[in-house]
Amino acid sequence: MTQGYATPQDAEDAFYDALEESNLEKMLALWEDSDEVACLLPMQPLVRGRAEVARVWEGLIDGEFQLDLSVTHLHWVEAGELAIHFVEEQVPAPDHQPQPPLYGMNIYRRGPQGWRMLVHQNSPAPPPEGRRSPDLTPPGTPV
Amino acid sequence: MTQGYATPQDAEDAFYDALEESNLEKMLALWEDSDEVACLLPMQPLVRGRAEVARVWEGLIDGEFQLDLSVTHLHWVEAGELAIHFVEEQVPAPDHQPQPPLYGMNIYRRGPQGWRMLVHQNSPAPPPEGRRSPDLTPPGTPV
Repeated sequence: MTQGYATPQDAEDAFYDALEESNLEKMLALWEDSDEVACLLPMQPLVRGRAEVARVWEGLIDGEFQLDLSVTHLHWVEAGELAIHFVEEQVPAPDHQPQPPLYGMNIYRRGPQGWRMLVHQNSPAPPPEGRRSPDLTPPGTPV
Repeated sequence: MTQGYATPQDAEDAFYDALEESNLEKMLALWEDSDEVACLLPMQPLVRGRAEVARVWEGLIDGEFQLDLSVTHLHWVEAGELAIHFVEEQVPAPDHQPQPPLYGMNIYRRGPQGWRMLVHQNSPAPPPEGRRSPDLTPPGTPV
């Protein structure tokens, strides 16, 4: 499949479907085929460019790995050929204990063949009181 | 000051200068004046829209707070009226111990008056081995 998607939301649905279905082919097809793509997964180094991004997903999606994700839309910006979506991603813990969600920020770009993913980035949401990680919030660090 | 900046990089320089100088006026002037702006600071809730973003910076930048930031550019994408910059932000710890940098992702938009900040988001970079935060990397969570 080399088609893009009709809307940014269709591309986003495909991204989360690919994760839930452990579908590597779908995942690789929905990323733009360019050196400008970038992906920041939790606590992982920044990966840039089609080849690096593909390598990361090939390492994660093995056809058995499955996620039961719950995704909530928070904020959208559309500007010309780009669409920026902020979402909250809730992943149930293996022990079914509630845990903080992750923020996801996805950027899609419209190309000649439709919309594809250009950027995926995660940020930790604030954890519950008492479970804050001082490593990540050095005193006096607002940025 | 209601002018934007001549380039996305000029706006980015102003952003980090405003942090280093504890300059609230500069900080507020460089954000786009719209409800589409969004800001994700470390371990903080998502804030959206001009009023909320202004409130966050008013709470952080008090004229005395100062940061000695070191910023490294990692990856840029320019697309029409938007520019996306990935940077690494290094903030010295109060005890001068080395600590992991933060990833910053900044999006600028060109308006009639020049380039202004539309989005600022941080992600934790991978911490050194032995200091990983299991709260933020629930098993089986790649997104």
